Parts: sequence; structure tokens; C-alpha cells
Amino acid sequence: MRVLWVSAHPDPRSLNGALRDEGVAVLRERGHEVVESDLYAMGWNPVVDHGDFAHDPDKRLDVLTESQRALETGTLSEDIRREQAKLLWADTLVVQFPLWWFGMPAILKGWFDRLFVQGFAQGVPDPATGRAMRYGDGGLSGRRALVVTTVGANAATTGPRGIHGDINDVLFPILHGTLWYTGMSVVPPLVVNGTVCLSGPEYEAAAERLRERLVALPDTDPIPYRRQNGGDYDEHLVLRPEHAAGEEGIRIHYTGPGQTEPCETTGGPTEADR
Amino acid sequence: MRVLWVSAHPDPRSLNGALRDEGVAVLRERGHEVVESDLYAMGWNPVVDHGDFAHDPDKRLDVLTESQRALETGTLSEDIRREQAKLLWADTLVVQFPLWWFGMPAILKGWFDRLFVQGFAQGVPDPATGRAMRYGDGGLSGRRALVVTTVGANAATTGPRGIHGDINDVLFPILHGTLWYTGMSVVPPLVVNGTVCLSGPEYEAAAERLRERLVALPDTDPIPYRRQNGGDYDEHLVLRPEHAAGEEGIRIHYTGPGQTEPCETTGGPTEADR
Repeated sequence: MRVLWVSAHPDPRSLNGALRDEGVAVLRERGHEVVESDLYAMGWNPVVDHGDFAHDPDKRLDVLTESQRALETGTLSEDIRREQAKLLWADTLVVQFPLWWFGMPAILKGWFDRLFVQGFAQGVPDPATGRAMRYGDGGLSGRRALVVTTVGANAATTGPRGIHGDINDVLFPILHGTLWYTGMSVVPPLVVNGTVCLSGPEYEAAAERLRERLVALPDTDPIPYRRQNGGDYDEHLVLRPEHAAGEEGIRIHYTGPGQTEPCETTGGPTEADR
Repeated sequence: MRVLWVSAHPDPRSLNGALRDEGVAVLRERGHEVVESDLYAMGWNPVVDHGDFAHDPDKRLDVLTESQRALETGTLSEDIRREQAKLLWADTLVVQFPLWWFGMPAILKGWFDRLFVQGFAQGVPDPATGRAMRYGDGGLSGRRALVVTTVGANAATTGPRGIHGDINDVLFPILHGTLWYTGMSVVPPLVVNGTVCLSGPEYEAAAERLRERLVALPDTDPIPYRRQNGGDYDEHLVLRPEHAAGEEGIRIHYTGPGQTEPCETTGGPTEADR
């Protein structure tokens, strides 16, 4: 594999830093190529603004239009182009972060906001139909994506009936709305729970689980999300009534009755989340 | 009301800028006090780092611990303290943003990441039990919150069976996991769809809907999320089996069989999302 590993923690001595080092090491041991984007170490600027597009700040900024124009004319800012090139080189994307307020840290959200411009990751037309490719097809198709996230809450509270909501549903905007949207195959996330008080043995278990997931990654079945152009959605992009009949909610966007591969979790459900 | 209006668009001449001006104007006409945080205009720094906590960058940074220490010793960075003071002054929070990759723009995500530190918004113990207050109670209880978001996709595609997922589910990490988590009452979001090609009459309809929602805000029923300490969750914070029996997914965290108040949408479902 050619792996781009994107991480977003302010301290390399953190749990996230340690897991990243384990992960990158096992990939290299297995002969895979790994390139890193350590967003904090890079001082990554996460804020979309006029400067991204060499756009006159005295004029109104239409982000979609200007981002596509800048992409096509090669005038996207240099930091964006460098990261896009790393992503295009890769066949595998690992996105690793501590879950903050049930989402990515801002520095990482802004990596997607700034890189995934109109015409690059989204809004790429199908040559055959002229219709924008999306969900299972798109600017980044042919790539595989794995999310690795650390969560303070324990596994019970982010489980199917836990108070925080099922972690697979909470991550839907990232897994489905960002990675799958742009054409990537998305494997089930690796969720490390209970990180506020992770013991030594729990850390070792988490690192071992990460190594196993990385070694198995080329052969891991992706989450069975429905494809936009696979026939399940009608001309308005609404799920046809014969699929998940009478149901609503996030789970209807899987081709099966639910998630076929359970989310991997580590960390015990033995104590209430703090 | 004392309203803090937080907005996050790079251009004040945008649709988001126009809607904000309409909203702030109608609130003031009605005699409410409004304070703004226009994050782009402020040049807000969204990145959590050592500097937030007057922390030695040569030492390992534990964000939870250091943020609480800095809060308690009054050493949080000045920009964070200023924004926290505005939020404490307010009884109503309006959070307005263009939906980017099914979430907040990074500059706004980082407003929450940096302000909502341990001991302020989260991790505040109940004086009676010593247990952390959360979901319906917490550091920001007594406040009301409204999310206003603009979405390129049309209303059908973000509806109950639309390809992007029901917008109420997609916004769950913000509505439930951030605003309700910290104790705020969260009213249904105002979602303005179809913004890529919004016509003049569609803009007027969206502005009118916004004005109506703001005028009605003091009397709007909040989303009926379950309270952490209301008895519905067991000692592990897992939903008791007698509630939403046999069900999983985000909707089980409502006290009713689903959302009792439909999400407001504008923008027609007449053409496929682009």
C-alpha cells in the first residue's frame, strides 16, 4: 500500500502520538510506503479563506466557484496543493484523531475543508452522464480509508444504546458524508475507548488491535454503504421505497439491515464515563 | 433575551452574512440584546494548543487536565476568556454556519474545542452527587440554543430518506453531543437548503422563516432529548431496555418515538442535488 497517515494531536507524546508511531512502524515493517501529515507539527492552517484561491478579498467570495477556478488554473495555495498531491499519490488514507465534541479537532476538519474543493474531491462529473459522481464514486475513488479515533467515554456509552449515540452514527458525517461521498472505500473505524484512564495493559491491547487492523487492511471489507448510482436512490436521490421499507435514519443507507461488521472497540464498559 | 450570535463565513456579503444581518436586526427590533462573534472577522484561532493554557510546550500536554487547571487559575488565554464571558452573559446562543462536509467550518469547530474546556462546559460535577452533569444539565444549563445552517443540497436529499442522511441525524454531534451535552435546551435547527442556486424569492422565504423562528424562539419547544439523570439511562449510561425496546440508533435518544417537531426546511426538492 501507499499510505497517507493524517494525524491531529497537539502533542506527539500523547496516546495518539504513541498509536501513530506503532501504526506507521508496522506498516513499514510489512513493506508498505507511508507518508505522514502531522497537522500540528506542520502548523497546518485549517481556515478556508480568500488566500486559498488567490482571490481578491475586496470581492465577494463564492467558495464553490472560486475553489474550482483555482483548482483548474493551478492557483490553489501551495499548502493545499502539496497535501492534495500526497493524497493523490496514496491508495490508502488513515485519518487519526482524538474525538473532540463528537467530531474532528478543528485543525483536521480544516484539512478536509481546504483540500476537498469543488472539482477535486466533489463535484467531479461522470464522463458518461455528466452527473456529479458521489457516494462510492468521485474524485478520490479507488482509495481505501480507515478512521482511527480515541474517545474518552467508555465503549458502553458509545455503543448501540449508549448515551452518546452509537459511534458509527456519530461518525456518519465523516465516514459517509466525507470519505464515502468522495468515492473512497471506508472500512469500519477503529475506536479506542476509555482513554481518560487507559491502563498499561489497555494501551497494549489498543496498540495490538491497531496493528491487526492495519495488517488486515488490504483485505478488510468496507462498510456496505449504498452507492449513489447503484439504483437504490431515485432521481431525487431519495432512497426508493422498496429499500428499508418504512424506515428512516442513518442505518437505511447500508445495503444490509444494519452494519455487517461490528465496530471494533477496546476499553472496558465497566465504569461510567467521566 | 440576551443573545450571543456566532457566525462563521469568510465573506459578510454571502448568503450567511445576509441572513445574519436579518436575524440580528429582527432581534434588536423586538428589544432583545445581541452580541456577535463573527469568527472570520475576528480572525479567530481555532486550534487548541499549549498556548491556550499557558503550558510549557516542552512538557506533555494532557488537554483535559491542563484546560481545567488553566480555567481554575484564570490562565486560559485571553481570547478564550473573552468568548466564554460572552457566552456566560447570554441566555440564548445562535450558531450559524454553512454546512461544510456535513459539519461546522473548522473555524467554528475550534470555537467549541477551545471554549468548552473541562470544568466550564463539561466535567462540571453535580454538587449533590459529585457526578459529572451532562445532557440536559451541565455548565451551560439555563441557556437556549438554535442552530442555523445553510446547505447546498436540496431538502429531499437531507430529508428522512435522502441520500445525505436526515439532517437531524447528521447534526446530532452538534445538537446533542455539544449543545445538549453541556446543558443547553436545543430547539430544532433552521436548515436552509438548496443554497447553491437560491433564487430571490427563495432567499426571501428563507429570511422570513428565520425571522419567524427568532421571534418565536422564547416559546419554542426544545428537541425532546433524554436527560442523563432523568432515569432513562442505567448506571452505565446505557438506555434501559424498557425505553425504545429493541431499537438502536440516534432516534432512541428522544423521549418520544421520534422527533416531535419536524425540522424546518426551505428550498425545493424539485431538482437533484448538485
